[in-house]
Amino acid sequence: MTSLINRLSPEARNAPESGIVEVFNAGWGREDLIPLWAGEGDLPTPDFICRAAKDSMDRGETFYTYQRGIPQLREALASYHGELYGKAFAPERFFVTGSGMQAIQLAVQAVSGAGKEVIVPTPAWPNVTAAVEIHGAHAVCVPMRERDTGWELHVEDIEAAITPNTTALFLNSPCNPTGWVAEESVLKEFLALARKHNLWIIADEIYALFYYGEGRRAPSFHDISDEEDQVIFVNSMSKNWAMTGWRIGWISAPAVLGQVFENLIQYSTSGVPSSSQWASVAALTEGKAFLAKQVTRAREGRECVLNGLQSLNRVKVQPPKGAFYLFFSIDGVTDTREFALDLVRQTGVGLAPGTAFGPGGENYVRLCYARRKDHLEEAVRRISAWLPEI
Amino acid sequence: MTSLINRLSPEARNAPESGIVEVFNAGWGREDLIPLWAGEGDLPTPDFICRAAKDSMDRGETFYTYQRGIPQLREALASYHGELYGKAFAPERFFVTGSGMQAIQLAVQAVSGAGKEVIVPTPAWPNVTAAVEIHGAHAVCVPMRERDTGWELHVEDIEAAITPNTTALFLNSPCNPTGWVAEESVLKEFLALARKHNLWIIADEIYALFYYGEGRRAPSFHDISDEEDQVIFVNSMSKNWAMTGWRIGWISAPAVLGQVFENLIQYSTSGVPSSSQWASVAALTEGKAFLAKQVTRAREGRECVLNGLQSLNRVKVQPPKGAFYLFFSIDGVTDTREFALDLVRQTGVGLAPGTAFGPGGENYVRLCYARRKDHLEEAVRRISAWLPEI
Repeated sequence: MTSLINRLSPEARNAPESGIVEVFNAGWGREDLIPLWAGEGDLPTPDFICRAAKDSMDRGETFYTYQRGIPQLREALASYHGELYGKAFAPERFFVTGSGMQAIQLAVQAVSGAGKEVIVPTPAWPNVTAAVEIHGAHAVCVPMRERDTGWELHVEDIEAAITPNTTALFLNSPCNPTGWVAEESVLKEFLALARKHNLWIIADEIYALFYYGEGRRAPSFHDISDEEDQVIFVNSMSKNWAMTGWRIGWISAPAVLGQVFENLIQYSTSGVPSSSQWASVAALTEGKAFLAKQVTRAREGRECVLNGLQSLNRVKVQPPKGAFYLFFSIDGVTDTREFALDLVRQTGVGLAPGTAFGPGGENYVRLCYARRKDHLEEAVRRISAWLPEI
Repeated sequence: MTSLINRLSPEARNAPESGIVEVFNAGWGREDLIPLWAGEGDLPTPDFICRAAKDSMDRGETFYTYQRGIPQLREALASYHGELYGKAFAPERFFVTGSGMQAIQLAVQAVSGAGKEVIVPTPAWPNVTAAVEIHGAHAVCVPMRERDTGWELHVEDIEAAITPNTTALFLNSPCNPTGWVAEESVLKEFLALARKHNLWIIADEIYALFYYGEGRRAPSFHDISDEEDQVIFVNSMSKNWAMTGWRIGWISAPAVLGQVFENLIQYSTSGVPSSSQWASVAALTEGKAFLAKQVTRAREGRECVLNGLQSLNRVKVQPPKGAFYLFFSIDGVTDTREFALDLVRQTGVGLAPGTAFGPGGENYVRLCYARRKDHLEEAVRRISAWLPEI
C-alpha cells in the first residue's frame, strides 16, 4: 500500500508533518492537560460574534457569495485598518480568505512557483515554509541572530540569501514564535531591500495588537509603504477575536491585484461562508472591548509565565516584545522534540518543540500564554517540579 | 500599476477569469432576474442543518479542530457511503475539505505538479482545468464526442492523449455541464486504462444522486475499484443538501494517504469549522427526506425545461441523464458568450455560456434547473419570446 504514496507528486509526498501535531497527539485526551502548544487562546468566540453568524443563517444566506468577500466585510476591514493605521484604506484592497493560512497560501501562489525562492527568516511558524514548498518553490530559511538581548534580524543576512530566483521575502512581525518585533527602522531597511531587488514582501502582521512596547500596536509596513509597493499583507480573524476555529482571514494588497486574487480564491475554495463573514463584521465593528480584554489577558499571561520561568535557574528566556508566546531554552536540554513529548506525557503540560520552527529554533520550546492565569500558574508549577528530574 | 500584475507568478497571472462570473456581473441586481447560471438550487439550507451548526457554536466549539475532520463526520460519511454503495467503508478514508472545490484542488496537488499533465474530458466545469493549471501542471482537454443521441466519451480518445507526463485522469460523472453519465462499462474501461498506464483517477461523482436512469444513483467507481486502485473521489455537501454557501466537501481515498492529505489541508486552510462539520453530520444522518425532495424537484425541473425548450424549433437539446443542467444549442447562435450576455440584459434570464466549459462546449449554453417550477416556466417563456428577435 505504501507504493500508492510513492505515486503521489513529490511536493505532496514530501510535505512535512506538523512538528506540533506530534506532541499534540502524545497528550491529547489527558484529563489534566494544559495545552499551551497551539497559537490559540482558551476563550470561545464571544456570543455577539456567533449571534451575527446565526442571524445570517436565519436570513437564508446559505448560498454562494462574492469571491472577494461580501462588501460589508470589505468595508469593515477598511474602517478597521483606517482607524488602526491612521490613514484611509479602500475596501477594494481587501480580499476575504478561508483562514490566515489560506491568505499565506494564496500570497505565495501569487508571487512564486516552481523553481522560485521565498526567503523566510527563522525561527518561523512551520506552515509558512511548508506552504512555499508545496507549490514547488523553495523556502530559503535565514536564521535570525540570537543575542543576550533577544533576537535580531540583520537585513544583510537577508540580502546575502537573495538569488536570481528569489521572488519574495516573508516577514512576520510581531513574530511567532520568538516574540521579536521589527522596529520601524528594520521595516524600512526591509522595504528598501525589496524595492532594490524588485521583490515582493509578504507581511504577516497578524499579532499587531499583541504588542508590549510603546503605543497600541507594533510598527507596520502600512506605516511606510505606498500603493505601488509590492507588499501583500496576510491576516486573520483568529487571534484578535478568539475565532481560530472559524477559518477566516484576509489579504490586504493593491486593488489592482483584485482579479488575480479573485481567481486564486475561485479555484481553491470558491469563497467563504456568508455567516462567517457576518460574524467577522460584528467582530470588527463591535469587538473593541473584547479585543482590549484579549490584549490585557495576554499581557497578564506574559507576566505570569515570565516571572515563573525566569525564577528557574535553568530556563533562559527573553521577554517577548509582541505576539503571545514565550520561546525559551533550558540548560541541558538539547532535544526539544523529545523534551516536549516527555513533558506532556509526564506532566500534562503541552509545549511546542522548537524543532518545528526551522533553523535557529531547535534548542527552544514555545509556550502560548494567551490563556487563563490559574492554568498558566499550574503549568509553571508542573514544569518547575519536573525540571529537576531530567 | 499594471506592472504590479506583471511581477506576479505566471500561473497566478494567467489563471482565467470565470466565464460564468462575467455574465453574472452583467445581470446582478436586476429585480426580475432568474439566475439559472450557477450550479446551485434556490432552497436555503434546511433549518435542521443550520440548527446543528448553531448548537455547535453554543457548545463553544470555536477552536481549531482535527485537520482530517471531526471523527463524527468521518463516521457519518462512512455510513452514508456504506448505505449508498452497499459495501463497508472505513471512516479513515474520508478527509473533510473546505468545499468540493478544495477537494479537487488537493487531489490535483496530490497527484500532479509543474510539468505534469492531467487529462480532462470536456465540456467540463471550468474550475477543474483552472485548478490544474494554477499548480503549474497542464490540463489536457479531450473533447467528448457529440452524437444525435447525446455525448459520448471514447476511451481511445483519452488513451491517445496520454504522454509520459500524464499523471491523472479527471472523470466527472454525472457530468456538469452535459448531463452525461458514464455507464459501468465506461467506468471499467477508464479504470483499466488507469491501471495499464499507472495513472490516478480523480473521480468527481458529486451529482451521483441526481440520476434519471434506472436505480437510485449513477454507476460509480466505488462499484468497481478496490483499495489498491489509484482513485481519489472528490465530493461536496453543496448540491445534495442545499449547502453551497457552507464551503464543505470531502475526499474519499485510500486511508494510507491520510497523512499526506492531512498535511495538504494543514498548509492550505488548516481545517474546516466544527460548526459546519456538525451541520454536515446532521445533513448526512437526518437529511434523507430533504435529499429525496431535492432529487424530485430536479426531476420535475428537468421535465419542465426540457418540454419547454424542445417545443422551440431552434433549440437542440438532449435529455440529460444526470446532474441538474440542460446543456443546449440554438440554431443560428454561434457566439454563446454574447448570447448569454444579451439574454440576461434583455430578459433577466441568466444562463452560463458554453465558452466557459472548454473545447466542445462553445456552441452551447447551460441552464440549471434545480429550482422552483414557476421560475423555470417563466424563464422558458422569456427565452421563447426573445429568441425570434435574434
